[in-house]
Amino acid sequence: MASKVIKGGTVVTADLTYKADVKVEDGKIVEIGPDLSGDTVLDASGCYVMPGGIDPHVHLEMPFMGTYSTDDFESGTRAGLAGGTTMVVDFCLPAPGQSLLEALTMWDNKSTRANCDYSFHMAITWWGEQVFNEMETVVRDKGINTFKHFMAYKGALMVQDDEMYASFQRCAELGAMPLVHAENGDVVADLSARLLAEGNNGPEAHAYSRPPQVEGEATNRAIMIADMAGVPLYVVHTSCEESHEAIRRARQQGKRVYGEPLIQHLTLDDSEYFNKDWDHAARRVMSPPFRNKQHQDSLWAGLASGSLQVVATDHCAFTTEQKRTGLGDFTKIPNGTGGLEDRMPMLWSNGVATGRLTMNEFVAVTSTNIAKILNIYPRKGAILVGADADIVVWDPAKEKTISAASQQSSIDYNVFEGKHVTGLPRFTLTRGEVAIDDGAVKTREGHGQFVAREPYQAVGRALSTWKELTAPRKVERSGIPQSGV
Amino acid sequence: MASKVIKGGTVVTADLTYKADVKVEDGKIVEIGPDLSGDTVLDASGCYVMPGGIDPHVHLEMPFMGTYSTDDFESGTRAGLAGGTTMVVDFCLPAPGQSLLEALTMWDNKSTRANCDYSFHMAITWWGEQVFNEMETVVRDKGINTFKHFMAYKGALMVQDDEMYASFQRCAELGAMPLVHAENGDVVADLSARLLAEGNNGPEAHAYSRPPQVEGEATNRAIMIADMAGVPLYVVHTSCEESHEAIRRARQQGKRVYGEPLIQHLTLDDSEYFNKDWDHAARRVMSPPFRNKQHQDSLWAGLASGSLQVVATDHCAFTTEQKRTGLGDFTKIPNGTGGLEDRMPMLWSNGVATGRLTMNEFVAVTSTNIAKILNIYPRKGAILVGADADIVVWDPAKEKTISAASQQSSIDYNVFEGKHVTGLPRFTLTRGEVAIDDGAVKTREGHGQFVAREPYQAVGRALSTWKELTAPRKVERSGIPQSGV
Amino acid sequence: MASKVIKGGTVVTADLTYKADVKVEDGKIVEIGPDLSGDTVLDASGCYVMPGGIDPHVHLEMPFMGTYSTDDFESGTRAGLAGGTTMVVDFCLPAPGQSLLEALTMWDNKSTRANCDYSFHMAITWWGEQVFNEMETVVRDKGINTFKHFMAYKGALMVQDDEMYASFQRCAELGAMPLVHAENGDVVADLSARLLAEGNNGPEAHAYSRPPQVEGEATNRAIMIADMAGVPLYVVHTSCEESHEAIRRARQQGKRVYGEPLIQHLTLDDSEYFNKDWDHAARRVMSPPFRNKQHQDSLWAGLASGSLQVVATDHCAFTTEQKRTGLGDFTKIPNGTGGLEDRMPMLWSNGVATGRLTMNEFVAVTSTNIAKILNIYPRKGAILVGADADIVVWDPAKEKTISAASQQSSIDYNVFEGKHVTGLPRFTLTRGEVAIDDGAVKTREGHGQFVAREPYQAVGRALSTWKELTAPRKVERSGIPQSGV
Amino acid sequence: MASKVIKGGTVVTADLTYKADVKVEDGKIVEIGPDLSGDTVLDASGCYVMPGGIDPHVHLEMPFMGTYSTDDFESGTRAGLAGGTTMVVDFCLPAPGQSLLEALTMWDNKSTRANCDYSFHMAITWWGEQVFNEMETVVRDKGINTFKHFMAYKGALMVQDDEMYASFQRCAELGAMPLVHAENGDVVADLSARLLAEGNNGPEAHAYSRPPQVEGEATNRAIMIADMAGVPLYVVHTSCEESHEAIRRARQQGKRVYGEPLIQHLTLDDSEYFNKDWDHAARRVMSPPFRNKQHQDSLWAGLASGSLQVVATDHCAFTTEQKRTGLGDFTKIPNGTGGLEDRMPMLWSNGVATGRLTMNEFVAVTSTNIAKILNIYPRKGAILVGADADIVVWDPAKEKTISAASQQSSIDYNVFEGKHVTGLPRFTLTRGEVAIDDGAVKTREGHGQFVAREPYQAVGRALSTWKELTAPRKVERSGIPQSGV
Ligand SMILES: [Zn+2]
Ligand SMILES: [Zn+2]
Ligand SMILES: [Zn+2]
Ligand SMILES: [Zn+2]
Ligand SMILES: [Zn+2]
Ligand SMILES: [Zn+2]
Ligand SMILES: [Zn+2]
Ligand SMILES: [Zn+2]
Repeated sequence: MASKVIKGGTVVTADLTYKADVKVEDGKIVEIGPDLSGDTVLDASGCYVMPGGIDPHVHLEMPFMGTYSTDDFESGTRAGLAGGTTMVVDFCLPAPGQSLLEALTMWDNKSTRANCDYSFHMAITWWGEQVFNEMETVVRDKGINTFKHFMAYKGALMVQDDEMYASFQRCAELGAMPLVHAENGDVVADLSARLLAEGNNGPEAHAYSRPPQVEGEATNRAIMIADMAGVPLYVVHTSCEESHEAIRRARQQGKRVYGEPLIQHLTLDDSEYFNKDWDHAARRVMSPPFRNKQHQDSLWAGLASGSLQVVATDHCAFTTEQKRTGLGDFTKIPNGTGGLEDRMPMLWSNGVATGRLTMNEFVAVTSTNIAKILNIYPRKGAILVGADADIVVWDPAKEKTISAASQQSSIDYNVFEGKHVTGLPRFTLTRGEVAIDDGAVKTREGHGQFVAREPYQAVGRALSTWKELTAPRKVERSGIPQSGV
Repeated sequence: MASKVIKGGTVVTADLTYKADVKVEDGKIVEIGPDLSGDTVLDASGCYVMPGGIDPHVHLEMPFMGTYSTDDFESGTRAGLAGGTTMVVDFCLPAPGQSLLEALTMWDNKSTRANCDYSFHMAITWWGEQVFNEMETVVRDKGINTFKHFMAYKGALMVQDDEMYASFQRCAELGAMPLVHAENGDVVADLSARLLAEGNNGPEAHAYSRPPQVEGEATNRAIMIADMAGVPLYVVHTSCEESHEAIRRARQQGKRVYGEPLIQHLTLDDSEYFNKDWDHAARRVMSPPFRNKQHQDSLWAGLASGSLQVVATDHCAFTTEQKRTGLGDFTKIPNGTGGLEDRMPMLWSNGVATGRLTMNEFVAVTSTNIAKILNIYPRKGAILVGADADIVVWDPAKEKTISAASQQSSIDYNVFEGKHVTGLPRFTLTRGEVAIDDGAVKTREGHGQFVAREPYQAVGRALSTWKELTAPRKVERSGIPQSGV
Repeated sequence: MASKVIKGGTVVTADLTYKADVKVEDGKIVEIGPDLSGDTVLDASGCYVMPGGIDPHVHLEMPFMGTYSTDDFESGTRAGLAGGTTMVVDFCLPAPGQSLLEALTMWDNKSTRANCDYSFHMAITWWGEQVFNEMETVVRDKGINTFKHFMAYKGALMVQDDEMYASFQRCAELGAMPLVHAENGDVVADLSARLLAEGNNGPEAHAYSRPPQVEGEATNRAIMIADMAGVPLYVVHTSCEESHEAIRRARQQGKRVYGEPLIQHLTLDDSEYFNKDWDHAARRVMSPPFRNKQHQDSLWAGLASGSLQVVATDHCAFTTEQKRTGLGDFTKIPNGTGGLEDRMPMLWSNGVATGRLTMNEFVAVTSTNIAKILNIYPRKGAILVGADADIVVWDPAKEKTISAASQQSSIDYNVFEGKHVTGLPRFTLTRGEVAIDDGAVKTREGHGQFVAREPYQAVGRALSTWKELTAPRKVERSGIPQSGV
Repeated sequence: MASKVIKGGTVVTADLTYKADVKVEDGKIVEIGPDLSGDTVLDASGCYVMPGGIDPHVHLEMPFMGTYSTDDFESGTRAGLAGGTTMVVDFCLPAPGQSLLEALTMWDNKSTRANCDYSFHMAITWWGEQVFNEMETVVRDKGINTFKHFMAYKGALMVQDDEMYASFQRCAELGAMPLVHAENGDVVADLSARLLAEGNNGPEAHAYSRPPQVEGEATNRAIMIADMAGVPLYVVHTSCEESHEAIRRARQQGKRVYGEPLIQHLTLDDSEYFNKDWDHAARRVMSPPFRNKQHQDSLWAGLASGSLQVVATDHCAFTTEQKRTGLGDFTKIPNGTGGLEDRMPMLWSNGVATGRLTMNEFVAVTSTNIAKILNIYPRKGAILVGADADIVVWDPAKEKTISAASQQSSIDYNVFEGKHVTGLPRFTLTRGEVAIDDGAVKTREGHGQFVAREPYQAVGRALSTWKELTAPRKVERSGIPQSGV
């Protein structure tokens, strides 16, 4: 394969900022330094050369009520690359009772058209001996070290506390990490029914049905269960202060917990649901819903201080047509918004440009932190010799106004419509191939490969050591019982 | 009925301290002032004349595994009176599937021998239309305005989140207040099984099986559910910082939540479970278990600052013989300790004498606060004309060393054995009758009466107003859906 | 003196709500009960009979830059009575170097025209042996048990940490309680100068110059110093979450700290300073300045949960003319707003009517709590036989729109202008005299008397006991030093 | 210069763990990879090859009461190298009134004998135009980007709030960062005098004189001042929960604050001061003093969660003879303990070996984090090509029992005496020279060089951007004042 040199840029990683050229060959970074030459030169002058983004939370072609979310692995990864994201992690969702391995086959089939690398989290949607056993296969043979648990979606994906506790313990044994969608499903279900019964059937009722404390409670519960099981925990789509508070409090006690705000929650607020246009509001329906500005401030501070580690999207794109399924009944509006294409420009514009985050922190929360957490660092998330050449050449002066009219995503709207961003990819490389070339989309369908991930990440191992050291010890007694008073 | 005058003492209430005589007739306080005379004079010189204690958390003659807790309404209330407590509130526990009203009849039968007044909390141990309907009868006709929910004791008393949410909403409608035993029953059950499987079968494993965060989690969950239901919440036996933190955090947000530390958790710690004598440890088995000194400090500070409101006992006395049921399997050790007789002297000695609490605060947390919360103030919990003459004449100089040998309780040990207390009743009056007369026990079996309690306490009513005011409102839209992007 | 009977109303106190008539004679409550008769009858039907309000924080005829605040003891107390307030506590402010006793004489002279009872806090504005000695006289002979300390107003009233620590220790010895105006005066002074230098000279810059964290810091500092000195602390005009957080955190540790939000901070926000009308903004200039809605929510929750105890006004009324002294230089705008007349109606309308507070809590925070804290309970703050007949007969249906045009205060505007309130006094009695009679003002100049306050309040005494018990103990060593390594 | 290869080890950095050889030449790392060769081979089999430790808080040959702390730049850096530390940062302490530049010359002279690289923090011990001006020279010409402020040591090094605020603002302008020794000096001074007056003159009284809240208060105050000045803050020797809480709370708000626990506070507790041997206790006298186990837990959790970033020593070694200056008066005991030699083995044994920290976190908190904070990364704190060859080859199996008898430090005792550690340097390299060779000390006096540090670290720059963006804006008004009411 011919070599490429990214020339004249400033390398920016999670902890370094320095001038250097980067040479790429056979999909890998092969040299970093001054004055490199290669077959092709990519002009990075005025640009930052950063690890490509990793979005650890997407749902592409997700089955939903007899249809599928509209962005599939092709359009979804194309959108991601257009925005500087070079890897996505999707969720394999077995139906209740279904074999994990069987479900995985279905997901493998869907992902063949991916334009960039990807991986899977496995969801635990039911519990039984088969699941217990297959978890081992999933970890040892299938390259998956993370298991997702839904504390909401009662009657569908939701698991009970005893199932979570059993699954988390199983994760601990296998060196895997549990993830949670944290909302109290019982309360959401009952409250939704009550709202509907009261005639509150519009999209705003979706937000009413899952207020912040419902998320905070579930987060707090999952944290306790994870600590009792002796395993780190990753909380997906942390949207509010209540959930963030639970995470902070846990970390303050030395617990190993991670939180993942979405770019939507960082930049959009709940006033969207009060829009008089039903479509406008319904298109923003996701779980958790958008929150107010105080919650946004909390999330931004979490990224700066390190109590939150990752910015994701929960990209799950439904068309307006699909959204309209919920006309007259908000509980039938498919949950999900887009974001893959906009995550990095929106975060840069609202974070780095304002001074809320340094450039290094930007790289950390869009790429490097999650690569470490998922145990794929430094293959991913790094600009290092030997790493995969998943690289974004970021032009801090390039600007645009976000619009559905010009997006890669297959849906007919964009929740960030009209937002002006400054800071966009000049080039995006996926394993050395130029997928985005100064605005031109040159993605190659099927180029993406599955990224296997090893268990026993360092933090989990350390936690196991500590839990073993501090495990309860039996009091040795003789002649039991002894005596009175 | 002949009159009595309590003479020469200092009246101490939750907010007043002043010299006055107190005259009692027909079971009521009829006059308070200087130089009163009556048929009988009780010499209160050097003493504080205080509202008799109310213990809102006792289990007398509680059914358990085919037997009963050993202190019944006779011995239990006798023990209470000996320690200055003049009213107890027991828990009516319907079996799963049993009618609430039928269970109440059983409890009514047991309580006929009580030496002092009493009331009942009704437990919600299962859920269904019958329970929903009977709750109304219980509140309107049976004088009960509190419903207890067990978040632990899986497979027995435990209720699920959706049941709690339904029941809490029902409480809100009826002007009643939910109570919770807050421990995550799923985690406790699984962990207990695991400990047993590992050979951890001694009484200390009981403590291992329900660490503080398991209580904190459940407290936090119950608080969220209560707030969503729009009803105040009372958390029984708050034993640890984790649970107290959840309560504080809720109150800090304006939520109406109460916490009840037990005298045991305030003064005894978890080192008791490491005693080499199995009996010693097993006698202290209760849920939640004793905690360490940091948790004690948290509870004391809560009483001083008002984030915790009530000191109770969860008196549920099992003999050593009964405790030994759990030899070789800690999960079979009956849960419960005594305390009714010792609550007030122990709190006085460790609280007032040390300066951690004022005398007024002592009255508040042993009597007046719970009378208000239970909506029986000022009939109970007050030294006011017209109030029931439930009075303790407290001699701050009287001392003793607590010992099973000299106690009223029917069991053969005392968890406070050997503790020296200063501050004891000179007289205890129950509705005007002298039950304790300078050490002599003159209780009268069957004197005690049921105290009916009205719903719609002021705090609950205020909360309902606020919840109504801030309820979610539907967005009115025309021509739905409107248009694009 | 002829007797009066307040007839047909519902007595509402900090802990009771009951139907009763109240009979008044010689300035005292002489009887409470059904069917009372007297020389005069005041019709309280449909009304609540409550303890008159106590405003513990006013500045009447306060010397300022060669002039005086416009409301004096006559107009100020008249305004108070019109709003249901029957006692005020003013601050005696010695000039630096001035004798405390000499200053007190000046304040005594000013207060002779008061229409209702009053008392004084003494300010410690400098430190020296004379102050140290006179503090004893002030406490023992002058009936003052509270000492105010300004942590702001650098170069004028401000004291340094070492002076505060010395003064707080002196308070502990004397059984008195320190008060603090908590803002970091060094930061305020420097920041004010910087803002002015940058051309930020309008009234909004007053708010910029003392942001919440400047108040929170000082509160936190004063709390530490008080705890080290072993004395309770009262924080005046707690306006923000930062300060409230410091108070909560202290209380959570068992420290004895009180916080006093003002009615202004509870109901008005900082958007007032952005009004394009300079007068409008300048009239709202006070320290601390108004805060945003999140801070308001924090204060309301504090009142409901008990982490804040008292609602005051810091009434210090300057005319528009006086305010205009600060045209072109915000630091010259006299600090202060009115509020005495509006505190109780505004709190009722925004608190009780909304369900944020119960009626009993309303009485507690407007009257009873501060009476206890200042050690004048139950002479003041109570509806009890023997208490001063400082009573407000509150008509919850009476309404008005607040307007300068109809107010008692001498100034030409009102910061609550246009607010509609429901709930107003039908009658206000000051020591038995009807001062407000269904809208008619019948105050009598000079009727008010000084209320002497005893030291050694119960909470302070308890704290001293605890501090003594836990004081550091010397390690006894022999043969010092002993040996190596 | 001949090349060296560190062979067969596992490179461990703050974010990577991988097998590789490391080649060193001319004091720099020149190659990292498999199968390297060089003139000399250092066998790293079974070892971790890590960045040498950086201790950012030492006082070598510090002037004190007419004498000097006993470890100078020679023995101090020798001790550091023996323990794996390859760089120290000392504090240049101008006398009040002394020129910063003049003081720096004195420190330059003392440091000539250093065995490893070093840098200086400049202390601001007084304030004036000269200091203001010289700060610029210090930053621009002298390679110093950090300024230390003492909030304690009243009458000596202590600065007032207004001076701190001025200095912090100056730091913001210059792109420098302030450091604080956070204890309320006024309280410490007064309390010390009071303790002495009460006969509390032993070393334990040193601990009594500076309880945790005295440190917490000062930390909180410094944080507020730094935020108002718009500059990041570094809190040295964070010893307790109170200080850590203030830091956490600040970070939770998005403030840029760093905390530095010492290895002593992490592993030794306050029971040491109650030792009956005066020498034993006096040798442990430092400020802040050792704290109890709860505080230790807080600090460990802070390192794991990232709310604390750096482990240092405050190494300031005084002999027993020097300590005895304080016989009969604890305030005269020179403050300080050793630690340079033991920091890394103690942290490894108590942190990594227990599972409280991962190896990567160990590197982060002993080296990489502070290198970033001080803006010398990746020259220091990294295993990267081009970085200084400050390397420790860490043998996790090597063990010893710490003892004064075998230490490098010049003093006659060791506060860690008797502690058994597992994990020690096999080799320590300072800029490529082997200073420690499997136990043999081969340091070279004078080898160490001053490390100049650039201002405008990335985090500070981001903060400046944010502060500028959110700076208060003047309200534009016309026709001031406008009109009425
Ligand atoms: Zn989700
Ligand atoms: Zn999702
Ligand atoms: Zn229970
Ligand atoms: Zn119970
Ligand atoms: Zn003030
Ligand atoms: Zn004031
Ligand atoms: Zn220091
Ligand atoms: Zn130091």
